[in-house]
Amino acid sequence: MPSSDRYSLIGGKHRKIKISALVVLLLAVGIGIGILLGYLIAFSIHYEPEPSCGSPCQDADPTVSSKLMASMEATNIRGFLSDLSSKPHLAGTPEDFETAEYIQQKWLDQGLDSATIYPYHVLLSYPDDTKPNKVQILNDDGSDNYTCVDMEENLRPEDQNPNIVKHFNAYSAIGMAQGDLVYVNYARVEDFDYLATEQPTLNLTGKIFIAKFGKIFRGNKALNSQERGATGLILYSDPADYGSDDPTAKVYPDGWWLPGTGAQRGNLHVSDYKGDPLTPGYPSNDYMSRIDMEDTYLPDIPVQPIGYDDALAFLRELDGPDAPSNWQGGLGITYKLGPGFTSRGRKVKMDVHTTRERKWTYNIVGFIRGAIEPDRYVIVGNHHDAWVYGSVDPSSGTAAMLEISSAFGKLVKSEEWRPRRSILFCAWGAEEYGLIGSTEWVEDFAKNLGARSVAYLNIDQAVNGDWYMRAKSSPLLYQAIFNAAKKVTDPSDADKTVYEVMVERNGDYDNPEIPYVSNLGSGSDFAPFMYRIGVPGLDLRYTYDRSLGISSYPLYHTAFETFYVMDQFIDPDFNYHLAASRVMAEITRDLSDALVIPFNCQDYADRLKYAVDSLKTSYQQDMADNSINFESLDSAVENFTASAQELYERTGEVDRENPLAVRSINDQLMGIERAFIDPLGLPSRPFLRHIIYSPSSTNYYASASFPGIVDAMFKIDEDPNQDERWKLVAEQMSVAAFTIQSAASTMKDYQL
Amino acid sequence: MPSSDRYSLIGGKHRKIKISALVVLLLAVGIGIGILLGYLIAFSIHYEPEPSCGSPCQDADPTVSSKLMASMEATNIRGFLSDLSSKPHLAGTPEDFETAEYIQQKWLDQGLDSATIYPYHVLLSYPDDTKPNKVQILNDDGSDNYTCVDMEENLRPEDQNPNIVKHFNAYSAIGMAQGDLVYVNYARVEDFDYLATEQPTLNLTGKIFIAKFGKIFRGNKALNSQERGATGLILYSDPADYGSDDPTAKVYPDGWWLPGTGAQRGNLHVSDYKGDPLTPGYPSNDYMSRIDMEDTYLPDIPVQPIGYDDALAFLRELDGPDAPSNWQGGLGITYKLGPGFTSRGRKVKMDVHTTRERKWTYNIVGFIRGAIEPDRYVIVGNHHDAWVYGSVDPSSGTAAMLEISSAFGKLVKSEEWRPRRSILFCAWGAEEYGLIGSTEWVEDFAKNLGARSVAYLNIDQAVNGDWYMRAKSSPLLYQAIFNAAKKVTDPSDADKTVYEVMVERNGDYDNPEIPYVSNLGSGSDFAPFMYRIGVPGLDLRYTYDRSLGISSYPLYHTAFETFYVMDQFIDPDFNYHLAASRVMAEITRDLSDALVIPFNCQDYADRLKYAVDSLKTSYQQDMADNSINFESLDSAVENFTASAQELYERTGEVDRENPLAVRSINDQLMGIERAFIDPLGLPSRPFLRHIIYSPSSTNYYASASFPGIVDAMFKIDEDPNQDERWKLVAEQMSVAAFTIQSAASTMKDYQL
Repeated sequence: MPSSDRYSLIGGKHRKIKISALVVLLLAVGIGIGILLGYLIAFSIHYEPEPSCGSPCQDADPTVSSKLMASMEATNIRGFLSDLSSKPHLAGTPEDFETAEYIQQKWLDQGLDSATIYPYHVLLSYPDDTKPNKVQILNDDGSDNYTCVDMEENLRPEDQNPNIVKHFNAYSAIGMAQGDLVYVNYARVEDFDYLATEQPTLNLTGKIFIAKFGKIFRGNKALNSQERGATGLILYSDPADYGSDDPTAKVYPDGWWLPGTGAQRGNLHVSDYKGDPLTPGYPSNDYMSRIDMEDTYLPDIPVQPIGYDDALAFLRELDGPDAPSNWQGGLGITYKLGPGFTSRGRKVKMDVHTTRERKWTYNIVGFIRGAIEPDRYVIVGNHHDAWVYGSVDPSSGTAAMLEISSAFGKLVKSEEWRPRRSILFCAWGAEEYGLIGSTEWVEDFAKNLGARSVAYLNIDQAVNGDWYMRAKSSPLLYQAIFNAAKKVTDPSDADKTVYEVMVERNGDYDNPEIPYVSNLGSGSDFAPFMYRIGVPGLDLRYTYDRSLGISSYPLYHTAFETFYVMDQFIDPDFNYHLAASRVMAEITRDLSDALVIPFNCQDYADRLKYAVDSLKTSYQQDMADNSINFESLDSAVENFTASAQELYERTGEVDRENPLAVRSINDQLMGIERAFIDPLGLPSRPFLRHIIYSPSSTNYYASASFPGIVDAMFKIDEDPNQDERWKLVAEQMSVAAFTIQSAASTMKDYQL
Repeated sequence: MPSSDRYSLIGGKHRKIKISALVVLLLAVGIGIGILLGYLIAFSIHYEPEPSCGSPCQDADPTVSSKLMASMEATNIRGFLSDLSSKPHLAGTPEDFETAEYIQQKWLDQGLDSATIYPYHVLLSYPDDTKPNKVQILNDDGSDNYTCVDMEENLRPEDQNPNIVKHFNAYSAIGMAQGDLVYVNYARVEDFDYLATEQPTLNLTGKIFIAKFGKIFRGNKALNSQERGATGLILYSDPADYGSDDPTAKVYPDGWWLPGTGAQRGNLHVSDYKGDPLTPGYPSNDYMSRIDMEDTYLPDIPVQPIGYDDALAFLRELDGPDAPSNWQGGLGITYKLGPGFTSRGRKVKMDVHTTRERKWTYNIVGFIRGAIEPDRYVIVGNHHDAWVYGSVDPSSGTAAMLEISSAFGKLVKSEEWRPRRSILFCAWGAEEYGLIGSTEWVEDFAKNLGARSVAYLNIDQAVNGDWYMRAKSSPLLYQAIFNAAKKVTDPSDADKTVYEVMVERNGDYDNPEIPYVSNLGSGSDFAPFMYRIGVPGLDLRYTYDRSLGISSYPLYHTAFETFYVMDQFIDPDFNYHLAASRVMAEITRDLSDALVIPFNCQDYADRLKYAVDSLKTSYQQDMADNSINFESLDSAVENFTASAQELYERTGEVDRENPLAVRSINDQLMGIERAFIDPLGLPSRPFLRHIIYSPSSTNYYASASFPGIVDAMFKIDEDPNQDERWKLVAEQMSVAAFTIQSAASTMKDYQL
């Protein structure tokens, strides 16, 4: 009888209760301990300190932004710029390669995961040391009357350097031209139209043209001139475009204004494809076959830049009718059209020996591997080649980029933080020769970049003035720019953000509450990303007050663009560099770390609507007269707008704990710009594939909206083949409508 | 003294031990219970029945495969085919639309998530009811000597139908031709080469050609003929190509062999772009502009097909030298070359009124939304338009596809299972006119399809014989095909799998242990997916014994291709249909449900190596003589092979619990075929963009490896401009090398 045994063992009722209490107590203690142990055991078995699927769902760490900003310093940027602009570093020279190595070393030191040099063997162009380029006035006996200087006057002993390249424009034809001079203003299409209309007896054929730099890309000036029969083209920077009205304004080295011997170097590559002229569509690696020189789009005539001192010698001698008042410049003379000089026997002679030769150029790519999505790229880029010292263009941007990469490198190196997505810092070679380094690299890696790139962020001239931060951008990135600019104090006023100064000094025309952001146009390395493979781009810089009325910062592409001018006049404290760098760093952080990519598709819808409205203003009547209406284009924009709204809502509602749902949404956001790419390209411009925006046909620097349509309408009245041209317009209208419709379809909820 | 109290309480040393044991026991029991409770409490607090990130990591359910297979039945397929082939359903006719609606309704009934009709307005072609096409022999007085029948003889009362379209080839030019006949064998390039070499006095210009169907795409026959000066082309099916040597073989309706009045309908669309001839590159929606008819690639000469009874009437009268022995056919006469007839006054006259007119065609897309990655598409397709009844082509494939979709629909409808990725079932319109429906749809949705498609699986003629399952495929899909074929029993032998019979009856030439899988070539709807946007494709069918030596199944594209011939002779039990459907269903399941996409990149590396070796065999000496070597191509294939190995290893090691790591790998696998696409296309063939494989230039049905190189080398010795041609060869060699290198770069571990 075990129970009685037990009872007897502990004895009596009283004891029984006591012992029962003890049993309960002991059991309870045991259970208590047990629960704790069991809990711990369960926890230790099942707990995963970093749940395998946890980190993919993690959103950006909000503290990183301020850490990045705090770690950036103006003096560092000054130091980088001082190094970079200490000597000329023209593409294809030994100093160019040294610059590449400098950047590579910096990135390795800063703690990036890798820094790789990508070389390409490309067609570049230089003055021939043995045969100097000459622009002269000859007397009627053929003797020399006047010869232009071939180099900036040395105005500051420290600027002297044997490697300063002489005046030239890259890819000029080699050739000798002799004859009468004609002044053609900026050599734009509208300038020649004016001459054709208002000066019908002025025969341009066989003449040498003189034109001012500014307004349009110089390559288009060369193209326009050779199409009008010029045998040579002289380009110069007029004081009205590169000087000041202010009598107290001082030229270099006493100020930032252009002295009379400064000539604007620059390339004349007029094809739509840019990149190496010899390998359209493919990378210039060692085995790629090259096209023949005669199949390239390079000028057929000699082109040479001069300073305004020399230009005065030519223009003051010009004969013929007065140029119209809006063609007059700042040389203090009455500009005449020509042809020829008042001293009848005198002629102009150009003797140009600018070479075209294959050289190596180098891109450097610094890589930070993304912690969660290493196969998504946020790309920050700037070119490293300069015409001479390049303290503004491009080294102010290179210096800024190095400080940005340093800030990211510090956090990565210390293992404190790593961005969700990969960041690529790119230092491009030979941009000055026509976006060559970036274009070749995009051609080389188009498939990876097309599939993986979130955005391309360009900083070419970080600072060319101190008035406000100017942004060019794809509409997708407007909000990312604004958000970053709101987080950074403007150097001009400690109480204002960069954003507030942007609004104040460069408000949007239609909506002055927000900053004006222009379309990208071209002119820097965002072009191959945006127009070839549909990676949304932006370009930021601090710039000067547009009311100065100048065509660019005055010393642009001259030997006077030194560290000194930046350090003394443009940004003495490097605070504008710092502000630009901080904004760029914040955009980079945001794009690389936010769980959901911060693209705004509704801004794109608004811009499309705006672009169609502009088209209507220009062409609706004309088109209606030729039975072409806007119905399909309007309907496409409506659908795009509705789809953008739908995607916007889905983005807001996405299950942020489901990493694949988030990735799908992000893929759709990344696909929007891509959807505007047509592999067939624009008519006659197969390498410009963005149907909504592209560089203008008449000015590579500028942006055109609906370029296919605008080009089809360009001077349509003058075309003898009206049927064919209007058929082209109809075709381009339907291609534009289809492209927008198909972009709308990419934003829907996966069912086609 | 509590201890003595305690001792006294439980008394004596013996008791002390007993009580200590009890305490320990009680505590232990308590702890035990506690641990259990604690564990349960911990579990109940922390357990999440479906971890938010859990399902994205889930691999395929292994039981689904057998469920799908078990639910499919041969009698269902027979029922579908009986419905579909009950009446002629030519593209652009009311019966075509009825077929589209039938398919849509089936998909909705089967439980697919949606079934959408996508209409396109495209250029089709028909005989003119009011002006019959005529092919005649005229007497020397112009009177009729012989007129071909314009329709198959009715051999079975049930086959009679007023909607059977008369003999014609789509897109023939409208025209009248009259003159002497020349026999040109198959009208291949090599046939004309033979005539040029061996019969140099035979003047082809101005003659009417008669050629046999078979060997190459009929459009190429028309193109070759018009290029050689033909004024008209008569095509017929020779008994040697569409008949049997076996004297007991019976023609329809007593067997599957071709009767003498059967003529092969089919299109003559010879452009590289296929799709609607009027909208190259863009979808034929209502607002898209159309190119002019004279800018299309359609024949300039009248072309008309006839039966072999009629062909005999022409060929037995032919004059001129005997055709060579390998040109002799099966009509029991000596084939002569012509020109003209033995009765000198007799001429041939063709009077063709085949129209070209715009009609609506319809694609139907049935959609099953993926449970986890709805933005990834596995696409199964078959066309629904037929020249007449189409019991083989395409309705055997349509019937199979409907049974496949039914099997998937059942599981989805019952909520038992849903694939990880989306499945799209596509029934294409107007394939017979040149892949029109599929091409227009791919053009319409290229951006979505390029970004989201895993693979395109085609089943056109599911069964045209009962010998073995023939596969054409991108190398990426070989293993997926093999794995599926290993899971299905072959209808010929219950002890063998489909795979084993493939090996037995169609082993690989070089590796007889595995089945031979050919390159895709063209000829069905996989072409726009594979060659335009780089979506890997495959095509499956049960087919006849190749040792029969026939050019296709005998009744191909004739009015005799009825349900009756399938049900009586080709697949009476529909077990071959069932086996093909099961294999296709299993591939579909595998691609849509496997966590890691079952692509094998190493097979692609092997095939590249093989293709380069073949190139070397053909051209290495010739190229070496012209300073072109294989170094860069070899090195590219080596890199591709190494990268494929790397990706293969990373795929094996991927953290299957990390959904983003898996997605990244899958994105890379999906990117491989895409990486062979060059947006610039092949030289002169801008819409064929796959650099490794494309339809051959001389035979659209066949596949060419390295088509750019092969075309550049084609008859290079005969080109007067040697320099330019060899430059093209060098260019194409470097483009091929670069394309493979860039494909290799897509497989690396994300750093460029």
